[in-house]
Amino acid sequence: MSPLPPRAPAPLRDGDLVAAVDLGSNSFHIVVAQRVLGQLRVVDRLRETVRMGEGLNALGGLAPEVRERALACLARFGQRIAEIPPRHVRAVATHTVRQLRAPESFLAPAEAALGHAIDVVSGREEARLVYLGVAHEQPPQEGQKRLVIDIGGGSTECIIGEGFIPLERESLQVGCVASTRRFFEGSKLTRKRWNAAFTEVSAQLQQFAATYRRLGWDEAIGTSGTHKAIGGICAAMKLTKGSITPEGLAQIRDRILQAGRIEDIVLPGLSDDRRPVIAGGVLVLEAVFAALRLERLQVSKAALREGVLYDLLGRGGADDPRDVSVAALMHRYGVDATQAARVEATALGLFEQVAGDWGLSNDDRAMLSRAARLHELGLAIAHSGYHTHGAYVLQNSDIAGFSQQGQRFLAALVRTHRRNVPKSAFEMIPDRLLANARRSAALLRLAVLLHRSRSSEQPQGLQLRADGDRLLLQLDRRWLQSRPLLRADLEAEPEDMLGLGINLKLALD
Amino acid sequence: MSPLPPRAPAPLRDGDLVAAVDLGSNSFHIVVAQRVLGQLRVVDRLRETVRMGEGLNALGGLAPEVRERALACLARFGQRIAEIPPRHVRAVATHTVRQLRAPESFLAPAEAALGHAIDVVSGREEARLVYLGVAHEQPPQEGQKRLVIDIGGGSTECIIGEGFIPLERESLQVGCVASTRRFFEGSKLTRKRWNAAFTEVSAQLQQFAATYRRLGWDEAIGTSGTHKAIGGICAAMKLTKGSITPEGLAQIRDRILQAGRIEDIVLPGLSDDRRPVIAGGVLVLEAVFAALRLERLQVSKAALREGVLYDLLGRGGADDPRDVSVAALMHRYGVDATQAARVEATALGLFEQVAGDWGLSNDDRAMLSRAARLHELGLAIAHSGYHTHGAYVLQNSDIAGFSQQGQRFLAALVRTHRRNVPKSAFEMIPDRLLANARRSAALLRLAVLLHRSRSSEQPQGLQLRADGDRLLLQLDRRWLQSRPLLRADLEAEPEDMLGLGINLKLALD
Repeated sequence: MSPLPPRAPAPLRDGDLVAAVDLGSNSFHIVVAQRVLGQLRVVDRLRETVRMGEGLNALGGLAPEVRERALACLARFGQRIAEIPPRHVRAVATHTVRQLRAPESFLAPAEAALGHAIDVVSGREEARLVYLGVAHEQPPQEGQKRLVIDIGGGSTECIIGEGFIPLERESLQVGCVASTRRFFEGSKLTRKRWNAAFTEVSAQLQQFAATYRRLGWDEAIGTSGTHKAIGGICAAMKLTKGSITPEGLAQIRDRILQAGRIEDIVLPGLSDDRRPVIAGGVLVLEAVFAALRLERLQVSKAALREGVLYDLLGRGGADDPRDVSVAALMHRYGVDATQAARVEATALGLFEQVAGDWGLSNDDRAMLSRAARLHELGLAIAHSGYHTHGAYVLQNSDIAGFSQQGQRFLAALVRTHRRNVPKSAFEMIPDRLLANARRSAALLRLAVLLHRSRSSEQPQGLQLRADGDRLLLQLDRRWLQSRPLLRADLEAEPEDMLGLGINLKLALD
Repeated sequence: MSPLPPRAPAPLRDGDLVAAVDLGSNSFHIVVAQRVLGQLRVVDRLRETVRMGEGLNALGGLAPEVRERALACLARFGQRIAEIPPRHVRAVATHTVRQLRAPESFLAPAEAALGHAIDVVSGREEARLVYLGVAHEQPPQEGQKRLVIDIGGGSTECIIGEGFIPLERESLQVGCVASTRRFFEGSKLTRKRWNAAFTEVSAQLQQFAATYRRLGWDEAIGTSGTHKAIGGICAAMKLTKGSITPEGLAQIRDRILQAGRIEDIVLPGLSDDRRPVIAGGVLVLEAVFAALRLERLQVSKAALREGVLYDLLGRGGADDPRDVSVAALMHRYGVDATQAARVEATALGLFEQVAGDWGLSNDDRAMLSRAARLHELGLAIAHSGYHTHGAYVLQNSDIAGFSQQGQRFLAALVRTHRRNVPKSAFEMIPDRLLANARRSAALLRLAVLLHRSRSSEQPQGLQLRADGDRLLLQLDRRWLQSRPLLRADLEAEPEDMLGLGINLKLALD
């Protein structure tokens, strides 16, 4: 058996590099930072205006030329991160990839071009990361609440938080690329179109605006290119020193409408690169100002990618945001923590025995452990078919810290931890994770089965060996003799495990 | 507009009759009681051995001759309850109907034969009702815990409760008809078959036995025909005075195995009617005794149908078990009670205006009000598609007090309270409820839309008129003028409402 990889990523040391890659709907970014005296110092930034959002059609397809543009950019980015250890890199994709009908057909070549896995994050997870980025760049004052608005290419995130903790996170499906395309088709800007678009965006905001206003905030901060551009125009027009006000916004909007066409927009301080998407950005921000009754918005240069960097630092350690989320789910759904801990301990014990031969990674270990903690979550819905209910919740919930692929991985393990394994259970798992997902599922199944009696006793003489898709399980003969139920369960298991593509042999006598 | 029906069923008065019909997997029962001095006194009982469980095949089909037997019995029962006001009658179906692939194709003619709606209840709801029946027939001692075991034809319920409150409810998919058929095929009784069957049933019990033993109980009670038969045999064999002990069970089991064939079983006190299913009953009970380490079980004559009677008394009143469940769901999923109350008040206000013309009943009113309280439940899972998540939870949860049809009704209203209405949303609703479900859904949609701003303000001048599938909505003109978002939402609504088969007209100017 080959030696086990270390349990958790080695902590970052001074001099280490870390990188975040952000596949946004307007632009792709890479930010590289170095740990210096315990802090992160940004040492490199790259940005390319890919406008992936422009390539998205209503059916969730991606225009071939936009796809090529994106892949070419990622190949260039890949070169930049090639020397950084993979565990110090995280790449995230947002709205446009979320909307793809067949995300894998983009993600597989994209991951190949970048040379790194790409996590698709939900809108609310994006909101959490944005907030985290701002909180680290502009440390919040104690006891003060902060509103953060991020207008991306495809979605807009609104967060209220206190300190480093987001209290409310919302994500709207409007952004500067998407709204400019949709509301001002053919580049035509009219007041009528503007008003109709304003009403539509306001209706989306209305769903949470009252709740936000009730909660309140002490300062409001805008992040992302849209805010930087609008703040820059306000400053160039000498309306403010770089912050955004309702008056400034109104003047900018009037000048945009006077232009009549997008390509004719002329505003002081507006770059050629920003011109094609400024109308949608101003529109969304005007609706946000109205719905939240904002009087002034400061502009921050931090954004999603800085949040990803700081989040990366916490991963693998005691404060991994994913483990905090797992604990919250266990609490909400009243999971029996004692039984969960028993199953987790045995699952990890089995993991140690086969991880080397099966090439399971630290990530797999962490996910197996989380799946073990959550496997009975669905019992809160109903006993009958609880594994299906648990998988439904894990697949559909907004779970802080997890990518969509991570949630699907967890859901697949929970779905298949008992009874027969349907073909569809692993459908949503990316190919690169598939083999390890099935193998981790096999370990969870065995651990659950061994603790079905819910007693505190430990299985005696438990040994597991892996060889390709074969598993050999041994148990102490005498111990098993007095447990006919367990034996019957074990004897029924090899048939079910074929559904995972694993050939289980029992050495019980 | 025709006058509204009264809000809640008139309270039961002395002299009133109530009836419960129980479509079990072994036998059908009817029990009629009369209220006398505030108490229920049973005035009539009917029982027919239909053995519906025998007609169920592995694909969820029902043998035609068994179906005919069941319908003929229900027609006879229908005659018995014809004179009792429908709101004083409740009919429930259990395991066999739960297992049908197409329950409606049996339920529709069954309801026609009986002349009354039939509620399909889940195993855990069955457990609750059994416990309630026993608790009323043999009032529990204060502070004492009680274990109740009910071995039905198709399922076995195990409950621990205190006073009138069940603390743990489990339902196993084994019963005397089903297990006798499955384990002793061809009527052959061998020790080997018995042991294999015992292991299988024990494995099911193992899932909760440790939890039950940890919780403990002060007395153990068995209900249903199986227990009465076994207790009777124990008494006839002079082993006990009618209770059941491990020794008595072991003797009965040995005599059953000695017989070798089901038709050759001879036991003192065993009726011809019970002989065909006694082997399965003894087997299940032996496994229960072993798993729960029982030393003695008292036999109660109360069962599911008595529970249904007592439950019926609570319905429509302040303690309706369904409203208690709704409150528990609101709590678990952290529903915003203020918003729920706003939507509920407006939905019921709209109901008052159209119930007469639309022929909506008190039951519809109660369900609309519950759906309004629960419509945002899915937000606890995720914001995106929360109506779908809420419907999933309502459809799949064990919700005390509700029939399966009732849960589907709620789920359909929650599923369709926003966005477009998919064709599949009402698929699971019985035909007899379909029109009212769609109409109730329309009222909930309007109420949700009118409160989308989540503010405390009330819609002004709100008037709704119904005429067939047409709805006419009016609002105060001036009030609406200053609410362009609401107006835009309203103007988009008629198109979505076509999905409910309802033609909404707006009179807004």
